[in-house]
Amino acid sequence: MKTMPAQAIQETHAFADEARDAVYRAIFSRRDVRGQFLPTPVPDEVLSRVLTAAHYAPSVGFMQPWNFLVVQSDQVKRRVHDAFAVAHAEAGDMFEGDKRAVYRTLKLEGILESPLGICITCDRERSGPVVVGRTHMKTMDLYSSVCAVQNLWLAARAEGLGVGWVSIFNQAELQEALGIPKRITPIAYLCVGYVSHFHAKPELESAGWLPRLPMEDLVYFNQWGHRDDQQSLIGHLRRDQAAAQEAGTANLSAAAK
Amino acid sequence: MKTMPAQAIQETHAFADEARDAVYRAIFSRRDVRGQFLPTPVPDEVLSRVLTAAHYAPSVGFMQPWNFLVVQSDQVKRRVHDAFAVAHAEAGDMFEGDKRAVYRTLKLEGILESPLGICITCDRERSGPVVVGRTHMKTMDLYSSVCAVQNLWLAARAEGLGVGWVSIFNQAELQEALGIPKRITPIAYLCVGYVSHFHAKPELESAGWLPRLPMEDLVYFNQWGHRDDQQSLIGHLRRDQAAAQEAGTANLSAAAK
Repeated sequence: MKTMPAQAIQETHAFADEARDAVYRAIFSRRDVRGQFLPTPVPDEVLSRVLTAAHYAPSVGFMQPWNFLVVQSDQVKRRVHDAFAVAHAEAGDMFEGDKRAVYRTLKLEGILESPLGICITCDRERSGPVVVGRTHMKTMDLYSSVCAVQNLWLAARAEGLGVGWVSIFNQAELQEALGIPKRITPIAYLCVGYVSHFHAKPELESAGWLPRLPMEDLVYFNQWGHRDDQQSLIGHLRRDQAAAQEAGTANLSAAAK
Repeated sequence: MKTMPAQAIQETHAFADEARDAVYRAIFSRRDVRGQFLPTPVPDEVLSRVLTAAHYAPSVGFMQPWNFLVVQSDQVKRRVHDAFAVAHAEAGDMFEGDKRAVYRTLKLEGILESPLGICITCDRERSGPVVVGRTHMKTMDLYSSVCAVQNLWLAARAEGLGVGWVSIFNQAELQEALGIPKRITPIAYLCVGYVSHFHAKPELESAGWLPRLPMEDLVYFNQWGHRDDQQSLIGHLRRDQAAAQEAGTANLSAAAK
């Protein structure tokens, strides 16, 4: 049997360098946007593309458990914002000491300013009680809808759209604001729109809330906690993380041009 | 105040067409790979890039709850496969009638054939008991680790690497096979490696298990179940879904060249 050399295999299915770099650029320059939304309308053709990207996420047993509830009405956005405000006030009280004061200064959503809200949901009963791949991990359908969120987020970045995931809601109140039945699980309420700028770093990193963890501390080999003598990989991880941090900054510089 | 026209805003932050198309190509040609793995080793520099892509996923409160357990040992892969085999036999019994027979013919994993396994986990206590954005939706940390899975998956596609998510495990058995402590939640066991080919469509779609749902049936406006007269958007959704289906086929043709 003829076998292909490694290099040839890679070249058969790998993207060309420029295309591959575009995928990484979307990944490294994606941000959770809260405060930079512009009122500029999002054209239907752009909205359609990012929704289609979400629909082509992986799903357990191909159940495609998601719906996409697009919010354009100011009145509905106001109801969603009211639900956020209640939960946000409750959340502030949960932090202790300095963190409580800092928490209250954080801008955590752009519900009213963003031209679009998109609620991505999970219908856990979509394809019957027994689902291929969900027989043991019952949360796999929820995870499928999360993959749809991430697809939409990366497609949006490539389109120049900012996305912010708002998760500070009492679930029943968000459902009520959007008329979502109890049997449907809301996964993400996303604020979507064009932005004045993308931040170079996640805002919680810039604010000193938490640092970006070093990649090399997060990787184990073969067993939990084991760190083999993998100096080549560790070296690459250090360089790639430095490059990923710079990619955010480069993105900001490009935007400022 | 001077405002920028919509077109200019878009052009400021949107990727150039070729780069944007590369992101969509990754999204539409990504597959859950089970049966096409090649033994070709994955270079450290490629592994490092896809892990770094995972680490730059969004995370609630910037908690970065993930670890990446890289499995290269045949002995450990065998233990993981043993755990799969137990759960897979249990799963078969859960389906009724024809579905049971079909289920048993499905190839659902490439644990032993793929050169790498990568288990992505979630440490729910990583940044203390109170996390920004997880005060109300307690599953947000799990969802962050899922976003890391999807980032890795798309980066892998751009690198020409196949990824298959295996979820048919009793969680405790997977943890035992990999030495993962009880307090850590395994999110995904991924089989990773170069592939002979990517399928044009998801295998469960080709097998007639379930059809791809029409996008237009999944989108609501402002309230659950509401379908406004949004003919422009619906037209775009139909065209984009047709194009996304073709993108998979185009990908196959390119591979066959």
